[in-house]
Amino acid sequence: MFINKPRDAFQHRSISMTAQCHYPAAAAAERAPLVDSDVEVDDRRLPGLEPTIPGEKPRVAILGTGWAACRFLKGLDTKIYDVVCISPRNHMVFTPLLASTCVGTLEFRSVAEPVSRIQSALAGAPNSYFYLASCTGVDTDKHEVYCEAVSSARLPSDPYRFKVAYDKLVIAAGADPLTFNIRGVKEHALFLREVNHAQEIRKKLLLNLMLSENPGISEEERKRLLHCVVIGGGPTGVEFSGELSDFIMRDVRQRYSHVKDYIQVTLIEANEILSSFDVGLRQYATKHLTRSGVHLVQGVVKEVLPDKILLSDGTNVPYGLLVWSTGVGPSQFVKSLAIPKSPGGRIGIDEWFCSVFHQQTMCLHLGTVQVFLNRQGKQVLPALAQVAERQGKYLAELFRKIGKANGGKAGCAKDIPLSGIPSSTSTFGSMASVGRYKALVDLRQNKVRIKRFTSKLCALISQDAKGLSMAGFISWVIWRSAYLTRVVSWRNRFYVAVNWATTFVFGRDNSRIG
Amino acid sequence: MFINKPRDAFQHRSISMTAQCHYPAAAAAERAPLVDSDVEVDDRRLPGLEPTIPGEKPRVAILGTGWAACRFLKGLDTKIYDVVCISPRNHMVFTPLLASTCVGTLEFRSVAEPVSRIQSALAGAPNSYFYLASCTGVDTDKHEVYCEAVSSARLPSDPYRFKVAYDKLVIAAGADPLTFNIRGVKEHALFLREVNHAQEIRKKLLLNLMLSENPGISEEERKRLLHCVVIGGGPTGVEFSGELSDFIMRDVRQRYSHVKDYIQVTLIEANEILSSFDVGLRQYATKHLTRSGVHLVQGVVKEVLPDKILLSDGTNVPYGLLVWSTGVGPSQFVKSLAIPKSPGGRIGIDEWFCSVFHQQTMCLHLGTVQVFLNRQGKQVLPALAQVAERQGKYLAELFRKIGKANGGKAGCAKDIPLSGIPSSTSTFGSMASVGRYKALVDLRQNKVRIKRFTSKLCALISQDAKGLSMAGFISWVIWRSAYLTRVVSWRNRFYVAVNWATTFVFGRDNSRIG
Repeated sequence: MFINKPRDAFQHRSISMTAQCHYPAAAAAERAPLVDSDVEVDDRRLPGLEPTIPGEKPRVAILGTGWAACRFLKGLDTKIYDVVCISPRNHMVFTPLLASTCVGTLEFRSVAEPVSRIQSALAGAPNSYFYLASCTGVDTDKHEVYCEAVSSARLPSDPYRFKVAYDKLVIAAGADPLTFNIRGVKEHALFLREVNHAQEIRKKLLLNLMLSENPGISEEERKRLLHCVVIGGGPTGVEFSGELSDFIMRDVRQRYSHVKDYIQVTLIEANEILSSFDVGLRQYATKHLTRSGVHLVQGVVKEVLPDKILLSDGTNVPYGLLVWSTGVGPSQFVKSLAIPKSPGGRIGIDEWFCSVFHQQTMCLHLGTVQVFLNRQGKQVLPALAQVAERQGKYLAELFRKIGKANGGKAGCAKDIPLSGIPSSTSTFGSMASVGRYKALVDLRQNKVRIKRFTSKLCALISQDAKGLSMAGFISWVIWRSAYLTRVVSWRNRFYVAVNWATTFVFGRDNSRIG
Repeated sequence: MFINKPRDAFQHRSISMTAQCHYPAAAAAERAPLVDSDVEVDDRRLPGLEPTIPGEKPRVAILGTGWAACRFLKGLDTKIYDVVCISPRNHMVFTPLLASTCVGTLEFRSVAEPVSRIQSALAGAPNSYFYLASCTGVDTDKHEVYCEAVSSARLPSDPYRFKVAYDKLVIAAGADPLTFNIRGVKEHALFLREVNHAQEIRKKLLLNLMLSENPGISEEERKRLLHCVVIGGGPTGVEFSGELSDFIMRDVRQRYSHVKDYIQVTLIEANEILSSFDVGLRQYATKHLTRSGVHLVQGVVKEVLPDKILLSDGTNVPYGLLVWSTGVGPSQFVKSLAIPKSPGGRIGIDEWFCSVFHQQTMCLHLGTVQVFLNRQGKQVLPALAQVAERQGKYLAELFRKIGKANGGKAGCAKDIPLSGIPSSTSTFGSMASVGRYKALVDLRQNKVRIKRFTSKLCALISQDAKGLSMAGFISWVIWRSAYLTRVVSWRNRFYVAVNWATTFVFGRDNSRIG
């Protein structure tokens, strides 16, 4: 029975709440589905990794290969732990540069970092593995995760299911794009979260450019095909719009000159663009995007049809390419987990044992100690790559200390005092590029390191009591440099630099592959 | 009616054979299908490019974006002609380096060259166009080609069909892989002709590597998943096997150490590998491939099943990845064309007006002058990229002369003497890499330029009466240098060099995207 319904299996088991649970109400609410069935599931027949035996290294299982998971993998002490990483993709995506790959500024491979390069134990250590699989369930009592392999090969049992017994578990399985249950979004819009999303956007954009050149295509149809609509005015939506307008200004005008006057970018946002940024930066971004030809529209999407969007004010917006970037929420997998959640459906966790990753949804099981909602029961950290990364680093450090105190094995960390290991929650500020050598840098929350640096900068726009925000060419240089230094490997740093230089010299590539 | 049956439409029209036809028997045999129907097809309702009017430049339509088409595009004098290129892909593939992209030695983008960079008129000239479309029919009387646009966008009429009237037509629409009608090949084997073929091979290879690491996979299943079988011992098959064994030796051993002992490459060839090369080189290749771990098998494939190959001697060969490279033959499109063919089904053409491109299937219509089989009715030139390229160059030159003599318009070239414009048929020799810094160079047919050069080379293996053949590290250097200089654009030359250097320093990338 479990074989057929792996996603429900873990729900049949109880999660015992310890005395440390500060939010019995929230936890009780979450426990409800756990008791709706007493059927015991037989998963003994699943193949898999058996529990570690005394003398073996403790085994850490990590679900996911996002920012948090990869930083954790990088920092994990593999002299202490064996590591098993489970994810449907074998690489980390350098998300801040993903928008640039859609129009060919960067190559796809330059923003993808294989996990086996991030943590070499996955490739070479005898008891460490990377499994290209989706996690379908977790049993926190038995200390097991249940997986389904990504496969197109014919295996005797397809889909191929297996289990992995763990001593410690890190859930960093990522988030899903928010669609607000608007009809037609999943069917007709493209997202921008993975490298293959960027590939799809690129293919569609180039196809529409070429299709609209075909003889006999009507003016109206040509306008529709070349209308690129971006929904959501957060950093991703703004950066993608900026890249697109840059692509139009430089490359479309030169290389699709027959249709260059028909192409148009529209950015639709329900409220204000870049709402988390300083007001001066928002104004700058608005002005710059408008000047670059991006049409900014305030509106709420009601429904998405195959060739047009219906707004709630009754407007019809015909489109050829629709990119949806209205933020992310908990994934189906996280929703299905029977562990305490925040009101938004994310995994709630405390400040030591389990770090709050609202949208990266990272969570940490230390032996039998369970996860908690944070003291306020609210989201405390923004869903940014930099936050995820620092939490991954922090967790790796925590694991090292626990491992050195012989708390690595399942259930052995209960008595280790963790109060002396503080987690960092400050952010480095936010950045966004708006195209054409212009970017925004918002450092208002980061007072210390920026004060001295900024006295030399001239593109300053506003400086409030807390720090600094700026926009323009120098911000763009900072944006590029900052990201270049954050790219994980030297190989990709080199490639990103080479891509940028080549795009500058030769323009963007417009081969449509596949 | 035509709208529904475009592929048959042109067959209803007669092609008049002129007095210059030297092969009335062959031509008559080809004419038979032309008269099997008298139904007049109504294609007036198709949108499209109308015939050029006096005062306008003559229009050349080119079907295809392979070696011949792109070299022709590059050389075409766009002061004389407007050009319309029709192809389902908007780039040329640098095929000799395609095998290297499967294992990550090169990036996919490095071997793709957008046509708009090869001939900028396609991007910018007012009456020149590139159409991302397949050609479905040709009417040589009406001087029209019929096309179907590549589309995933919703157009009012989907699939979108249109026609293009031409003054001159160049058919260089490529070939299809030969499967010899063996059952299961099209369903289960992967080919290696396009960039997306290479992407599929790469995805499957990396998937199988990761899948075989999953816990509980049996020994036998693991061996099957990691058995890479290559059918066909021509240069493509040998180069792919060499790259694969190189990938296994350097990258799989390091990064998939759990399964490194299970991976195996088998090359199956019915006769001898590299049969067009010098015997010394064949022996060298056999020895080198065997030493690199490639299992060479002489056998004939009878049937391909989803997980195994049946050979004609009754052997079963289980496989995880099957790459089929047994050469190419005329495409469905060429087969469907009602113009004189060689016995093998390729378009037969003479030495001036229409150049023989047996497997690149290039053919040229000069006004009402029709195509002919060559004097011997046999294939005279090998199906090599270099031959295609030189014929493209030759045709461009021929077109320039015809255009300058005011023969550009449809039907105006009849009286222009072409006998003074000889086409070159000598080849530069053959090359193939066999992996691990080793390659073969066979220059036996190229006496002049090589004699002086070779006296300095030490890796010489055999030198016969006609020229030279050699193998080893120096050949590998020649192989790389020769191809690097043949890569079309400086951008891609730069990228190929950067890719090679990066692979040398960092190893191959193993992100599995998509």
